[in-house]
Amino acid sequence: MQADDMFVVDDQGNVVEPPRSGCSSKLSECAPLFMSAYQLRNAGAVIHSHALEAVLATLLDEEYGTMEFRCTQLEMIKGIKGHGYYDDLEVPIIENTARESELTWSLRQAMEAFPKTYAVLVRRHGVYIWGDTWQQAKTQAECYHYLFSAVVEATKHDLRLDIGPQREPFRFFRNGVPRYRPGDA
Amino acid sequence: MQADDMFVVDDQGNVVEPPRSGCSSKLSECAPLFMSAYQLRNAGAVIHSHALEAVLATLLDEEYGTMEFRCTQLEMIKGIKGHGYYDDLEVPIIENTARESELTWSLRQAMEAFPKTYAVLVRRHGVYIWGDTWQQAKTQAECYHYLFSAVVEATKHDLRLDIGPQREPFRFFRNGVPRYRPGDA
Amino acid sequence: MQADDMFVVDDQGNVVEPPRSGCSSKLSECAPLFMSAYQLRNAGAVIHSHALEAVLATLLDEEYGTMEFRCTQLEMIKGIKGHGYYDDLEVPIIENTARESELTWSLRQAMEAFPKTYAVLVRRHGVYIWGDTWQQAKTQAECYHYLFSAVVEATKHDLRLDIGPQREPFRFFRNGVPRYRPGDA
Amino acid sequence: MQADDMFVVDDQGNVVEPPRSGCSSKLSECAPLFMSAYQLRNAGAVIHSHALEAVLATLLDEEYGTMEFRCTQLEMIKGIKGHGYYDDLEVPIIENTARESELTWSLRQAMEAFPKTYAVLVRRHGVYIWGDTWQQAKTQAECYHYLFSAVVEATKHDLRLDIGPQREPFRFFRNGVPRYRPGDA
Repeated sequence: MQADDMFVVDDQGNVVEPPRSGCSSKLSECAPLFMSAYQLRNAGAVIHSHALEAVLATLLDEEYGTMEFRCTQLEMIKGIKGHGYYDDLEVPIIENTARESELTWSLRQAMEAFPKTYAVLVRRHGVYIWGDTWQQAKTQAECYHYLFSAVVEATKHDLRLDIGPQREPFRFFRNGVPRYRPGDA
Repeated sequence: MQADDMFVVDDQGNVVEPPRSGCSSKLSECAPLFMSAYQLRNAGAVIHSHALEAVLATLLDEEYGTMEFRCTQLEMIKGIKGHGYYDDLEVPIIENTARESELTWSLRQAMEAFPKTYAVLVRRHGVYIWGDTWQQAKTQAECYHYLFSAVVEATKHDLRLDIGPQREPFRFFRNGVPRYRPGDA
Repeated sequence: MQADDMFVVDDQGNVVEPPRSGCSSKLSECAPLFMSAYQLRNAGAVIHSHALEAVLATLLDEEYGTMEFRCTQLEMIKGIKGHGYYDDLEVPIIENTARESELTWSLRQAMEAFPKTYAVLVRRHGVYIWGDTWQQAKTQAECYHYLFSAVVEATKHDLRLDIGPQREPFRFFRNGVPRYRPGDA
Repeated sequence: MQADDMFVVDDQGNVVEPPRSGCSSKLSECAPLFMSAYQLRNAGAVIHSHALEAVLATLLDEEYGTMEFRCTQLEMIKGIKGHGYYDDLEVPIIENTARESELTWSLRQAMEAFPKTYAVLVRRHGVYIWGDTWQQAKTQAECYHYLFSAVVEATKHDLRLDIGPQREPFRFFRNGVPRYRPGDA
């Protein structure tokens, strides 16, 4: 894909110039979603992904109706602007719809409700990730996908990453290795 | 592989022209299976895959004799022609045989019984996927493989994707997060 | 690596010619193991792999002292010379030793005891795979690794592939889908 | 990245020469950690990784406060200098901090306490791996990552690799296959 294959739209999302190359592609149905990030969050670029780890991240807690993905105390969280290691990283999850353009309202709601997020997950669908520049959108997309994978893989080991370490309070030794066990002194 | 390395067959599957390049390959034992998609479904191209996710998708429910793979409410379903997000995607599973050509009868049965499908899974073997054009065959193959992987991975988390979300009906809050729990008001 | 970087050995494994390129590498400690396949099985090439799926395949049943990897009724078994779909594919597992050259005796025992095999697994180590030609060694290595992965992945779903399908004998319908259930008529 | 893009520092970690290329990158916050390996272990190169298998390896036993990763009797252990197949490979795990430079004290403690290790894991963060040369750092990084993956994957099958094989003491036969079972004679 070259620059000449792209649509130019104004800040309301109206097409100002169709692809100069004359290619027959149509404007993405995601256009109003991309526009939301430009309008509400001053994004420089938006990335949309169907990566399986993003979809699985929306499914793990679906039966309880959990409305956000959450993790904390993972180094990679520092890759998301405004977040430190001890912060909770929260990514809102919106419900999917029959057509992508119908996601616009709830995507905008999520952007308003979670002012620190640079991503919105769509249940059973994928994720929208943006950044102040295309470079930041790309690095943040890498970090978010890593964190989705971390939580999905940890869940296979019955480990929770939505809360910090649940360390047992007292230490004992097993095979010469210091360990902790509840109730020990 | 070049065009000159291929066999040309007529609409009955008879070889009209062997490879012009003179290469010594023999006609694939899958030929009558490929022909079935051309004859019954007017396919423009057929792809055969042994991908592990396709094989695992046929094994998950094998003990109950389930005769089709099924999933619903996954965005990627929209990548299969004629399917929307809320549709059930059904892919028939036929039993494998000692020789590939012996699959022909049951493959054709499956094509007749599942008129909306563009794929037939073969238990413990793989999958045949077709499309109206080679481009559609390729994109549909990508979507089907993604969906097989999604179901296989979700099963590792004891999640079912053959039915829609089983949301608990009432909401409560845990750690400030809205959640749903059965029996709560 | 070029041809000039290799050692030439005679049929007893003695070095006839060191690397012509003058490179300083030493003869692989696997040499007597490779020689065993040339001497006992008339191999044209031998491949040694540490692939994790091979190592995991030797661990799944280790506590019971199982001495071979086994699978059946998987299409990919047909990729191993002399095997059909309904055959048991058996790959002997030998115990690892402190030094690779010490594996020679048990590798040769395994080759004698399993005349149909083209591979010997080494517990907690990897696998030796050979073929009549280098092309066959390569395709068989691909098939064996696929089969190791299939069994390892199936085990995550509590599915056994060392025996054929354990189909429940009677059929019933669930959600309009034909299924089988024990004790039903 | 070219040589001219790098910082040159003295043996106390002071910048002797900024990047000659004039690129605007800043000195890595890991610099004092890399320096620790040069100063205390005479390393020729240090590699820092956020690979998910390294992070998961620090999480598996976190609730018990286990302070090292441990595995034994895996062929790949021989890839770490000074280790044989039957040795315990121990990699200390230090707790992560808000800033990378704050890890320096505990990293140095770990290097002193585990004189045989060429790696230090950082909980929920990743791993530092070094070698006498950059080549050895690279091969050891490959081996360590393989071993982290092996333990993480084995854990999915409820297999422990931190202790050697727990073979049942008596043998019996099942389907003609020699097996062992406790209590059998």
